[in-house]
Amino acid sequence: MSVPPTHRSGHPPAVGTFTTELSVRFPDVDAAGIVYFAKAFDYAHLAWEELLAAGGLPLHEAIPGRPWILPLIHAEADYRRPMRFGERLRVEASLTDVGGSTVTLRYAVRGAEGELRATVTLVHCAVDKASARRIPLPEEVLAVLGRAGLSLPATA
Amino acid sequence: MSVPPTHRSGHPPAVGTFTTELSVRFPDVDAAGIVYFAKAFDYAHLAWEELLAAGGLPLHEAIPGRPWILPLIHAEADYRRPMRFGERLRVEASLTDVGGSTVTLRYAVRGAEGELRATVTLVHCAVDKASARRIPLPEEVLAVLGRAGLSLPATA
Amino acid sequence: MSVPPTHRSGHPPAVGTFTTELSVRFPDVDAAGIVYFAKAFDYAHLAWEELLAAGGLPLHEAIPGRPWILPLIHAEADYRRPMRFGERLRVEASLTDVGGSTVTLRYAVRGAEGELRATVTLVHCAVDKASARRIPLPEEVLAVLGRAGLSLPATA
Amino acid sequence: MSVPPTHRSGHPPAVGTFTTELSVRFPDVDAAGIVYFAKAFDYAHLAWEELLAAGGLPLHEAIPGRPWILPLIHAEADYRRPMRFGERLRVEASLTDVGGSTVTLRYAVRGAEGELRATVTLVHCAVDKASARRIPLPEEVLAVLGRAGLSLPATA
Repeated sequence: MSVPPTHRSGHPPAVGTFTTELSVRFPDVDAAGIVYFAKAFDYAHLAWEELLAAGGLPLHEAIPGRPWILPLIHAEADYRRPMRFGERLRVEASLTDVGGSTVTLRYAVRGAEGELRATVTLVHCAVDKASARRIPLPEEVLAVLGRAGLSLPATA
Repeated sequence: MSVPPTHRSGHPPAVGTFTTELSVRFPDVDAAGIVYFAKAFDYAHLAWEELLAAGGLPLHEAIPGRPWILPLIHAEADYRRPMRFGERLRVEASLTDVGGSTVTLRYAVRGAEGELRATVTLVHCAVDKASARRIPLPEEVLAVLGRAGLSLPATA
Repeated sequence: MSVPPTHRSGHPPAVGTFTTELSVRFPDVDAAGIVYFAKAFDYAHLAWEELLAAGGLPLHEAIPGRPWILPLIHAEADYRRPMRFGERLRVEASLTDVGGSTVTLRYAVRGAEGELRATVTLVHCAVDKASARRIPLPEEVLAVLGRAGLSLPATA
Repeated sequence: MSVPPTHRSGHPPAVGTFTTELSVRFPDVDAAGIVYFAKAFDYAHLAWEELLAAGGLPLHEAIPGRPWILPLIHAEADYRRPMRFGERLRVEASLTDVGGSTVTLRYAVRGAEGELRATVTLVHCAVDKASARRIPLPEEVLAVLGRAGLSLPATA
């Protein structure tokens, strides 16, 4: 008998998304027994780390190994239903926008029945480490996201 | 010689804002030595706790003592310049919107020279504890914010 | 191709231990790129949550569902070698002492080659919720730990 | 009327201690409304940061500015009474041991009436940054602690 994994990642359940699973941990919840709002951003960042790894460029290799970094310039979350201690959650990441220097991902956090609990949007901006200036988004970033199953919907 | 306070709160430096000061702590920063993005939401929530206390209804009394709670339904942040370990920051809270059930505050996080580092917006929604349903924003909430110096700009 | 799980738990690799795996996440590390010391306690608590679940009494069910709780009365950690961002770690839990009201577990945190990074010891005390007083350790606690593979070494 | 500071540091209330004040914040507490155990280590580290600053060598200057660092090799806490959301706490730091490479501080966390809530002990070890090896404790460390009011009790 194997103990079920408590945090599992996998390939997209649907075209264009990458799914990470996690459990709500004791330190994640507040005095009301529900996930403290800022923790939703950690859940999205966890999914970001997972999808970079799935795409072949783990963040812990990207940070020292590339001349660029991808700091966040914007983050936002909408909370639909409380997430409770002990729950299994599924974070579905999708690519929603690619600008000159920026890349935007949306993370839908869902409960066991697939119902939406929260959505998080993170906007990263490519910055050259040496000059600390914005640079065009490196093509490698989109290649990595593509290998994790993420791509922009084709436009007509 | 007195040791300078490391986290000080005070009355509005300008009409309509409430200012909280804090220091960037060691556990707040990431591997790059700058504040981890999700921490900005903690800074805003700290200011929220301070201004409720200044308005006479500390959050730790409001949660058990009122039939309503004010959970967040939306949170967002824009990051302008890195916040670094050891820095003194000033969080200026202002009231930006009041809806039927909601109240929206904006938190401008500034460095020692007043330069903007990040802005955080938090939207709270009044919920009745017993029914877990939205209710009209209790008048007491605006009274508390008012006593902390926050009010909506008068409209023409 | 399956994406490797990033946090997996399993049955004891050796008699008397319960192993949980985890990855060092970006928010876990400090400005030096190594795990912030207090985070080691979170890793041990994560293993505690996992082994309770493996033993059939997940913490999120135990807290509301039992007349007792098991708050910590002592926690300690020894740090041997730095744990770095991106590393896979293995946390091996073992039961080291059972007193009148207390139960003590030791968590050995190991790197990919099995080398010791840190050890954490957590001492829980059984407390009756209603009276807030110490009570003898409920037998169910040892039964749960036993089902997760943990027992005290037999003494001569 | 001035809003009372919510986190204040000051000179020793008694010979040989350095006191930092803080408030228990909403994200600090767990589902039971009491401070999550690992957070006590953050409180002690906050006091450590404050006393280094009071002694003239803030940690954010020490880390980049000295050839040595003072990582923790041991941390422990004893929990006496719950610390609750909204409480003002006082952390009294004292110097309890100086070894060849190590320096040990004890942090007594007290409530409003002075009653002990928790004690935390942190053992730091001096390490040369370049070689990553232990070195004798730099004299500057004791000088800094001394300027913050901390010294070892004289022995007979």
